[in-house]
Amino acid sequence: MTVTEHLEGRTSVIAAIEARRRTVHEVLVARDAKPDKVADVLDAATRARVPVRRVAIEEVEKLAHGRTHGGVVAACSPRPLDTAADLKKLLASLKEPPLLLVLDGVDDPRNLGLCLRAAEALGAHAVLLRKREWDFDAVEVSRPSSGAFERLPLVLFDGVDLLTSLAMPRFACLANAVKTIHEVDLAAPAAIVVGGEKRGISAAVREVCDRRMRIPSKPGAASLPLTHAAAVVLAEANRQRLQARK
Amino acid sequence: MTVTEHLEGRTSVIAAIEARRRTVHEVLVARDAKPDKVADVLDAATRARVPVRRVAIEEVEKLAHGRTHGGVVAACSPRPLDTAADLKKLLASLKEPPLLLVLDGVDDPRNLGLCLRAAEALGAHAVLLRKREWDFDAVEVSRPSSGAFERLPLVLFDGVDLLTSLAMPRFACLANAVKTIHEVDLAAPAAIVVGGEKRGISAAVREVCDRRMRIPSKPGAASLPLTHAAAVVLAEANRQRLQARK
Repeated sequence: MTVTEHLEGRTSVIAAIEARRRTVHEVLVARDAKPDKVADVLDAATRARVPVRRVAIEEVEKLAHGRTHGGVVAACSPRPLDTAADLKKLLASLKEPPLLLVLDGVDDPRNLGLCLRAAEALGAHAVLLRKREWDFDAVEVSRPSSGAFERLPLVLFDGVDLLTSLAMPRFACLANAVKTIHEVDLAAPAAIVVGGEKRGISAAVREVCDRRMRIPSKPGAASLPLTHAAAVVLAEANRQRLQARK
Repeated sequence: MTVTEHLEGRTSVIAAIEARRRTVHEVLVARDAKPDKVADVLDAATRARVPVRRVAIEEVEKLAHGRTHGGVVAACSPRPLDTAADLKKLLASLKEPPLLLVLDGVDDPRNLGLCLRAAEALGAHAVLLRKREWDFDAVEVSRPSSGAFERLPLVLFDGVDLLTSLAMPRFACLANAVKTIHEVDLAAPAAIVVGGEKRGISAAVREVCDRRMRIPSKPGAASLPLTHAAAVVLAEANRQRLQARK
């Protein structure tokens, strides 16, 4: 069976075309879309020789999940996830210390999309996600990721073998850790593990983390939600890396 | 006319009771709620002498917006927003350099709630919000704020007079700024201005910002969304402040 997904919105569609991880079969653009709002989609499709069809706005609406399509949808193959072998090849090719974000307990596609967006912006090389969490609608991940889902390597893991096979320290983000994120070395190779809001990092994953760290925060305040915690730790890793290069 | 709001979920209800900004008229707890899930709500209500009524779960559901009420709602007066005078009094009372988060262009109540949560956790003393953005349903702000909306001072501003009257540097977060957030002094008094995703910081507010800064990020990646940008900058301010105290 061939599965066709309908990506929506210019950001996701352009990212999918340019990242070339999916096959984009066809781009549908509403006839009455403002030319300046779809010029870059049309350009990207032309460059990649993806057929474009101008259709009635109703046809776009029928295929879109939400209301943020802006008159653009693309019919494409699913985005293939990356394998452990892909990840190892990527790590071997890097010219800087690897920075990975490991997510254990993401509870919705929007949060995963936001994590991918933060991970890409803040210099992570790949995101690892626990396998049993992958029952997300990929379109619902892609939209909030603002294209990062199309570009950033995303690898599913099951158990802890992949994590332990990576030759780099694994840092668990835990509220009760002694050291803060500013007191650990995130400029060296690092796999940063962040847990979901409901249950935190699972016992099995926590057990294979050899470092612990916490985000300093105000006593009495609620802890940061998963996507914010991930962004703050990755931004600190990025700061330490910029500092180390000076 | 007296307006009654129905706050839902133990976190928001306990925060509202303990923060004492609202009058909590009554707490409704579902009869079949698990005792260990509502014990802290019952304790908080007892300590503050707020009446508790055990009701059928259907009554809670009828008053709640979402499905995350956990069998708890509270009938309360609206949370009064803080005035410019309240803010000045607060600033005068601080024993550390003030840290303010100024939001210009928040587009939904969930994002405002998340900004409040990050601001509280990361040590901001108050949040300032452009007045014309305040048409949010307060209950929709409170829930994602995880109690921060009940506790953290929140001031509306109109025009730029309040901003310019604050005797502290105003830092605009702008993608094209020359200096990064790591190259400016956020340990001294600081008002951090973050703009919405659609239009960014308005021209009038930008004009009264005397410093500019950017979050270093990977070329080609999408910029961080508003709530993540706010969290990353506040975390950096917090880092600089912890560092300065050493």
